[in-house]
Amino acid sequence: MEEIMPLNKGFVLASRPPAGGKATLDNFAPFEEETGDPGPGEVLVRHAFLSLDPYMRGRMDDGPSYAASQEIGKPMIGATVGEVVASRNPGFSVGDKVLGMGGWRLYARDDAALLRKVDASRAPLQAFLGALGMPGITAWIGMHTIIAPKPGETVVVSAATGAVGSVVGQLAVAAGARAVGIAGGAEKCAYAVKELGFDACLDRHSPTFAADLKAAAPKGIDGLFENAGGRIFGACLRRLNTFARVAICGLISSYEGEETSSLPDLRLVLVRRLRIEGLIVFDRMDLWPQAQADLTALYAGGKLKWRESVSDGLDSAPKAFLDLLAGKNFGKQLVRLP
Amino acid sequence: MEEIMPLNKGFVLASRPPAGGKATLDNFAPFEEETGDPGPGEVLVRHAFLSLDPYMRGRMDDGPSYAASQEIGKPMIGATVGEVVASRNPGFSVGDKVLGMGGWRLYARDDAALLRKVDASRAPLQAFLGALGMPGITAWIGMHTIIAPKPGETVVVSAATGAVGSVVGQLAVAAGARAVGIAGGAEKCAYAVKELGFDACLDRHSPTFAADLKAAAPKGIDGLFENAGGRIFGACLRRLNTFARVAICGLISSYEGEETSSLPDLRLVLVRRLRIEGLIVFDRMDLWPQAQADLTALYAGGKLKWRESVSDGLDSAPKAFLDLLAGKNFGKQLVRLP
Repeated sequence: MEEIMPLNKGFVLASRPPAGGKATLDNFAPFEEETGDPGPGEVLVRHAFLSLDPYMRGRMDDGPSYAASQEIGKPMIGATVGEVVASRNPGFSVGDKVLGMGGWRLYARDDAALLRKVDASRAPLQAFLGALGMPGITAWIGMHTIIAPKPGETVVVSAATGAVGSVVGQLAVAAGARAVGIAGGAEKCAYAVKELGFDACLDRHSPTFAADLKAAAPKGIDGLFENAGGRIFGACLRRLNTFARVAICGLISSYEGEETSSLPDLRLVLVRRLRIEGLIVFDRMDLWPQAQADLTALYAGGKLKWRESVSDGLDSAPKAFLDLLAGKNFGKQLVRLP
Repeated sequence: MEEIMPLNKGFVLASRPPAGGKATLDNFAPFEEETGDPGPGEVLVRHAFLSLDPYMRGRMDDGPSYAASQEIGKPMIGATVGEVVASRNPGFSVGDKVLGMGGWRLYARDDAALLRKVDASRAPLQAFLGALGMPGITAWIGMHTIIAPKPGETVVVSAATGAVGSVVGQLAVAAGARAVGIAGGAEKCAYAVKELGFDACLDRHSPTFAADLKAAAPKGIDGLFENAGGRIFGACLRRLNTFARVAICGLISSYEGEETSSLPDLRLVLVRRLRIEGLIVFDRMDLWPQAQADLTALYAGGKLKWRESVSDGLDSAPKAFLDLLAGKNFGKQLVRLP
């Protein structure tokens, strides 16, 4: 007798934000569909957590980006963790915990080639969306292939309590470097120092930011891991040491046109022998196994912590995403599904 | 009986150019001095050729640079090749051919630690000031540590017939890449293609430069070796491919404030995963032996050519230097001493 498949619900991209403008709730629309039986080789996954990440904002635009634009009328893309509830693939059994790109919806019928089993006995399932997943691996790859801090050097990271930034800081500390975070507000800064072990953390809203930075990085900056861009980035550039490395990982401050981000004068690049490099985690799939193993070992040893902002239920996703863009999250932003 | 030492003549920096302004002949003043006997460990060298290089302009300013400013009243710094005429160092004999930093003068009494013997049987002595010396090694290090062209990629180099640029292009060709030069005027461009083997060379004065570049680099730019900066640099940035590498080696167009050089929008760095890096040859002394061996082998195999602009006599040095800054040289600028 045929099993009754559950009704699927989710959100599509309904419209694009105006050029250079802010995304709004109207840009998303709910949808319902029959889940449908998995076809040959397919797996049906019930999502436990949906990941919300700043890169999604870039895909909502039509302009050039490193990834294809999100299509209008299609489910919003996004990483998900969940449990296999039906399988027509011999590699996956009902009950397996998996990481996928299921998008903003309750269920996904996935091509198994895009799914990866995760060992949920080693860490909470949602960690594979955060510190042990794409954001943590982004931090790891940037720190290993671009920043490569030496003991005693100073590493500055913006969006320091976010999913990427918090791992950057802890990797800097693990490497014997001085970790200086930049975050929005005193509460996040206190958390970065007290819980994550940063040596200092600066409030990006401080009217004396340049002086704060000078005090927190008295020997200048050797590595700058940039997640935000904008005015604060400019202040950091002025403190770069000779041979400094700058990883451009994200520019959340400019995703909605609030601040422009500019690079230093070319003469400074030459005089200081700066290295400035764009970083996209999917370019180095070859390093993912090593990164994940290293991060998992750090976590097991108590040297990798994180914080989560969890919003409850599928319907909370659009609002939680807008809050993420506004910096209202505190740690890795997740949506918990029932 | 004591040998009579020759009278030394040279040029000192008499004054600095105005901030952002042009150097003039007035900035240099002749001097005469007793050469003096070499002290213990010292060597007296009679210069055969003096090298003139764009970096010297940076040292004439007082502002921050990667090297100390040239002191007012001191002989202009510069690389030299010549012959040992007196030695109180067991490592050097009269008649040895040596490379040093003797500066703008006929003779230098050198600390032997700063001298290097060169094998003048393998190449003309002055080659060790050009393609087989600092400029050639600059090209080699930039091409090996930053640009690293793969076969079929496109490498663009500005100041393409200069001492650095001409080697960059030939190394690109040797690596199987498409070499596109940028130079000032049809004569230099024809030379780059016909003699140096560039695949194409563009006149930087062309009113249709952007279109010329698109035609010469139809698949975009994978490596940009920048010696000039300015407006032309901006046009090149717009043609960079994903994963392009940009070596910032020199900014001759902005040394005298004619054009400002700006970097691409930070978003482009991220979207295209650009790598932009400042290059100073003295940072990688560890690579000099390998670079020099490789360049010498290319030369011996007929795959490394160059052209020289030679001005005659010490007194011609200031004018020849100003002409170099104005791009009037054609190939490596040298001053031949009697």
